[in-house]
Amino acid sequence: MSRNTFGHVFRFTTWGESHGPALGAVVDGCPPGIVLTETDIQPFLDARRPGQSRFTTQRQEPDQVRILSGVFEGRTTGTPISLMIENVDQRSKDYSEVARAYRPGHADYAYDAKYGFRDYRGGGRSSARETASRVAAGAVARLVIPEVFILGYVSAIGGDAIDPAAFNPAEIGRNPFFCPDAKAAERWEALVDKARKDGSSLGAVVECVATGVPAGWGAPLYAKLDAELAHAMMGINAVKGVEIGDGFAAAANTGEGNADPMRPGNDGPIFTANHAGGIAGGISTGQPIVVRVAFKPTSSILTPMPTITREGEATELFTKGRHDPCVGIRGVPVVEAMMAAVLADQKMLHRAQCG
Amino acid sequence: MSRNTFGHVFRFTTWGESHGPALGAVVDGCPPGIVLTETDIQPFLDARRPGQSRFTTQRQEPDQVRILSGVFEGRTTGTPISLMIENVDQRSKDYSEVARAYRPGHADYAYDAKYGFRDYRGGGRSSARETASRVAAGAVARLVIPEVFILGYVSAIGGDAIDPAAFNPAEIGRNPFFCPDAKAAERWEALVDKARKDGSSLGAVVECVATGVPAGWGAPLYAKLDAELAHAMMGINAVKGVEIGDGFAAAANTGEGNADPMRPGNDGPIFTANHAGGIAGGISTGQPIVVRVAFKPTSSILTPMPTITREGEATELFTKGRHDPCVGIRGVPVVEAMMAAVLADQKMLHRAQCG
Amino acid sequence: MSRNTFGHVFRFTTWGESHGPALGAVVDGCPPGIVLTETDIQPFLDARRPGQSRFTTQRQEPDQVRILSGVFEGRTTGTPISLMIENVDQRSKDYSEVARAYRPGHADYAYDAKYGFRDYRGGGRSSARETASRVAAGAVARLVIPEVFILGYVSAIGGDAIDPAAFNPAEIGRNPFFCPDAKAAERWEALVDKARKDGSSLGAVVECVATGVPAGWGAPLYAKLDAELAHAMMGINAVKGVEIGDGFAAAANTGEGNADPMRPGNDGPIFTANHAGGIAGGISTGQPIVVRVAFKPTSSILTPMPTITREGEATELFTKGRHDPCVGIRGVPVVEAMMAAVLADQKMLHRAQCG
Amino acid sequence: MSRNTFGHVFRFTTWGESHGPALGAVVDGCPPGIVLTETDIQPFLDARRPGQSRFTTQRQEPDQVRILSGVFEGRTTGTPISLMIENVDQRSKDYSEVARAYRPGHADYAYDAKYGFRDYRGGGRSSARETASRVAAGAVARLVIPEVFILGYVSAIGGDAIDPAAFNPAEIGRNPFFCPDAKAAERWEALVDKARKDGSSLGAVVECVATGVPAGWGAPLYAKLDAELAHAMMGINAVKGVEIGDGFAAAANTGEGNADPMRPGNDGPIFTANHAGGIAGGISTGQPIVVRVAFKPTSSILTPMPTITREGEATELFTKGRHDPCVGIRGVPVVEAMMAAVLADQKMLHRAQCG
Repeated sequence: MSRNTFGHVFRFTTWGESHGPALGAVVDGCPPGIVLTETDIQPFLDARRPGQSRFTTQRQEPDQVRILSGVFEGRTTGTPISLMIENVDQRSKDYSEVARAYRPGHADYAYDAKYGFRDYRGGGRSSARETASRVAAGAVARLVIPEVFILGYVSAIGGDAIDPAAFNPAEIGRNPFFCPDAKAAERWEALVDKARKDGSSLGAVVECVATGVPAGWGAPLYAKLDAELAHAMMGINAVKGVEIGDGFAAAANTGEGNADPMRPGNDGPIFTANHAGGIAGGISTGQPIVVRVAFKPTSSILTPMPTITREGEATELFTKGRHDPCVGIRGVPVVEAMMAAVLADQKMLHRAQCG
Repeated sequence: MSRNTFGHVFRFTTWGESHGPALGAVVDGCPPGIVLTETDIQPFLDARRPGQSRFTTQRQEPDQVRILSGVFEGRTTGTPISLMIENVDQRSKDYSEVARAYRPGHADYAYDAKYGFRDYRGGGRSSARETASRVAAGAVARLVIPEVFILGYVSAIGGDAIDPAAFNPAEIGRNPFFCPDAKAAERWEALVDKARKDGSSLGAVVECVATGVPAGWGAPLYAKLDAELAHAMMGINAVKGVEIGDGFAAAANTGEGNADPMRPGNDGPIFTANHAGGIAGGISTGQPIVVRVAFKPTSSILTPMPTITREGEATELFTKGRHDPCVGIRGVPVVEAMMAAVLADQKMLHRAQCG
Repeated sequence: MSRNTFGHVFRFTTWGESHGPALGAVVDGCPPGIVLTETDIQPFLDARRPGQSRFTTQRQEPDQVRILSGVFEGRTTGTPISLMIENVDQRSKDYSEVARAYRPGHADYAYDAKYGFRDYRGGGRSSARETASRVAAGAVARLVIPEVFILGYVSAIGGDAIDPAAFNPAEIGRNPFFCPDAKAAERWEALVDKARKDGSSLGAVVECVATGVPAGWGAPLYAKLDAELAHAMMGINAVKGVEIGDGFAAAANTGEGNADPMRPGNDGPIFTANHAGGIAGGISTGQPIVVRVAFKPTSSILTPMPTITREGEATELFTKGRHDPCVGIRGVPVVEAMMAAVLADQKMLHRAQCG
Repeated sequence: MSRNTFGHVFRFTTWGESHGPALGAVVDGCPPGIVLTETDIQPFLDARRPGQSRFTTQRQEPDQVRILSGVFEGRTTGTPISLMIENVDQRSKDYSEVARAYRPGHADYAYDAKYGFRDYRGGGRSSARETASRVAAGAVARLVIPEVFILGYVSAIGGDAIDPAAFNPAEIGRNPFFCPDAKAAERWEALVDKARKDGSSLGAVVECVATGVPAGWGAPLYAKLDAELAHAMMGINAVKGVEIGDGFAAAANTGEGNADPMRPGNDGPIFTANHAGGIAGGISTGQPIVVRVAFKPTSSILTPMPTITREGEATELFTKGRHDPCVGIRGVPVVEAMMAAVLADQKMLHRAQCG
């Protein structure tokens, strides 16, 4: 069974394939009366948009969003908001090779195993192009949680991490890597350029911090805030790991080392550390929510790899054409969008039960 | 809003607090005709049961499960299976201190912030005791997927990891740590003993591998197999990180290094590596499903920590009484149970859509 | 797939069979801080309880409810509320006949066709005894909507209807039929007595009115308040029809005759009629919510009826033993409970979206 | 909270307003490999399309459907199927009066009470125009259940019923009323013409029969087949009552009169009556599924009715412009579509649990 709806009360359903006429999202459950126009959504799509530097795929998509329903006189009505993005640059190339054999590391084989059949053009539904729909829906979600500020960035590429001491949020928009450390951005330029020229690819780590989340959001036990975030992030294309707060480092720590002591503050407790990443018992504590997401290197590389055909014959395949040398870079707006979607949903869930 | 149901078509709802009269699970959607008695469930509860070694909490709970519905003449009828476990050893101690102030690192403050009020006896609903219900439900899930073999173990405690070369599944049952490496188990004995005596605690990493999962399970895009596993695992008490396959290591790799090439085999492709952990595009590939889960150190320690009272006054608190020095150890049966629950659900979801 | 959970945010999951050890409900999503003890639930179970007059089944069940979780110091904590009712009077009779052949009009054949197998003792899960769980859950739901007053009653038995002009709510509790018309109650006594003595049975209509529901509850388009009520009511055992407001009479009317004009009032509009039964566009209008529910006559009768055995052989069967001569009578507390459950859920859904 | 998704595993989400640029449905969970083109959907939209006779609204909408995703090389891929219908004939009339005051009997007041605000153009989201999306989704659902034949028709208008003895399915397509009784169709022509000329409107009853449904579909207890049908039908615009099988007539009957005896047949039992309408215990019995749906008269009439303005002042309103004199007529394709959607969903639910 296909499950293309995300969320409990703030929900969105996405549709569309890489090479179909369009893709989109239907956002359901949005509160009424929120000011919303295409210009509230477009900047986030622009941030995710391909073809803006030599470090992302050269596919040219304007990714212009249209609002088809749910908004009247510039405000949300409480009814479904249908968002549509037309595909423009579906290059009419020859897909016979991808149709014939499975690209290793891609979803090709798994889709065929599941459905007996697949739309092989550009990966069809499994293409990262679908994340444009998420970004559009996430832009609406942001408007539901104006009290929250979400900041995502790349913290490592190919194992080369930023220096936390050099962290400067103003840098994030100044380089093509969403990198908050100017020196790391310089190093990555060389690193990604080399990968690109070699026809190789690199993994990356994206971090995302949400500040302004009040204590009390989260729906224990099986829609805990951290569980929902893990679900949201692990469902993004190419993601293989998710951490909240200290994550795996906590597993190597002691109780004393991992403690988040509290002292009195004017607006609730002041925590003197945030190993927990802002979540305890699945519920927000009022501290910043901290999520870390591991993106694998793009599977599309120029080195030929052994694989099999649909008929089960041995063959070799390498991926021609346009692709991201480091898919994690463009993951930043997607991670932010999913953070926003989870928080909007949890805010509304909390309001339902706790008034 | 509280959300105490897990799963889409194979679903279970848990209830119960640490110090209430009982706790339980209602398993809904189980296929009919499966042979099921309490003896199919009890061994898994026994594996999770506290008080079996000095390395776990000394609370003595027999954790005897009773089946109250959904089974007739020894077979499931397709109707809800109600499982109940009575609490026996709720020590009638003085909880006034925990009632008065928030234990740092625990869910105490977050529950109060959310609900305005909490059952403070032993952590109430946020106690790891609830995981007994999950283990019981997971035992039923296992019967839905007889083709799958699930193996969980601890791979690191306090940063001390097993030697993969020494991996021996037969060792797992021979030590109190679910450790597959005999030498590591020896080291951990000293390590955990020291933490216990110091009133400290340690984090741990649990790995879980499911073999026998056919290619094709997974419900893209928002109930992907990996996303569902991340959700299931991150929702377990004390978990802060989840990896599928190589996880964060993939983020430091190249496309060539991370590739899983295929060659023809008799029963589908043979993959010559499994960096992906058995999942591509959110769908199983037929390779072993590999999940890695980070447990933080138990927050209950004997070192006094600064905290605040319900009234917002500064105070100090340390946790007297029984607790696990390394909660990750007893996490193994819980991780296995959640793996089983996700796979049973995905098997049925797949059957619904793809026949 | 079995689906034993009702509701979206205020949800309950029921379990249990007619002749198992117990049955129960897990109520999830209940707001915290509500005063709740068994005595808030028991009166509603007592109203539904069998064996209280000669007009209902003679099975003797005390139907004592126990709260096993979710309540601390007399108040709801926001965690799941587990309610359990033990079965006491499961008569150890000989079920071989029911095991062998299908009782016409009962769910026997359908359950076998679906599950390949069934718990034949007293109807198993399909027994109206399950409605005790709904009544218990509904009692909790009532506490979520203190602003609403729910009144159910029988308006017709075997085609003999009450006189609307004689409607007196005070009468409802004075006769064994939940009848608001004293004269009708007298007639029904003779009518139901005759059916009982003849080993026959009678259908009934139950009406239920909820006052105090503010305008604005309802979740269009596919969880409309009227659609949710229809779902809730049609799912009660033996129900074959549901009307909102004028129901089928509206289908025989004209636009003028069916109009509900409005004029200004102090608290929102005053409607000068209520053909709509308090719902427009799936949303409450502030008028009383009016639902009418048709119960078929109990299928268990003493007249032998042709049927088939599990092996497909022709046979005859009549239902020995205890049964309700008019199952609709005891439907009143069940209809009220489902009304409460729907309204509590819709109140919380509304709060989630509209604050 | 808005809930614009219908179904459990075969699900569709609709969006769009009467006077927006377009409306549509996203069908999720459809099995892969089904042959599907626009021509499989268009005939059903054509049957529902307005402006085809003088007995329906004169709004001219071609209702051309486009498939935007989920189909590749003419077959469903198992991914979401996005269906879009552009609005063409949104007459640019003056809506100031409807914006200012509430049309009695319409959802205007309720939407304002809920959302504080509404799209008043043509009823916005509450317009029956939304049902085009359902009809499109239902056309896809039909392809999931090729074993089932669905036949809907109008059985009464304004209280004037068809003669069951004159029932002829071939007649249904020969008159503008979906009427299976030629003589009734003649009478209705006069009846509806008069209502139309008087600026009045009439209610109607729609019956729908599904044959070919095997025994065993239905998900007890809270997604029973009859409960799901009641939910689906009561959620259609203007519906006020739903019956399964004999419905309210069963409430006036005796156990003997309402019995459905069985005798052996070659393919399961032969039922010698079908008072139950093909459903027992919420599960299909293999007999035809029979549903009866009451549509109220269109609220839009030319007789001025007292109402109030948004500011709460008394005023009068009558509905100018185009409308259906009997909205039940065009309800037939919608009832059929919802029947198909419920059955497709239940088929897949059954397959999930019972293989």
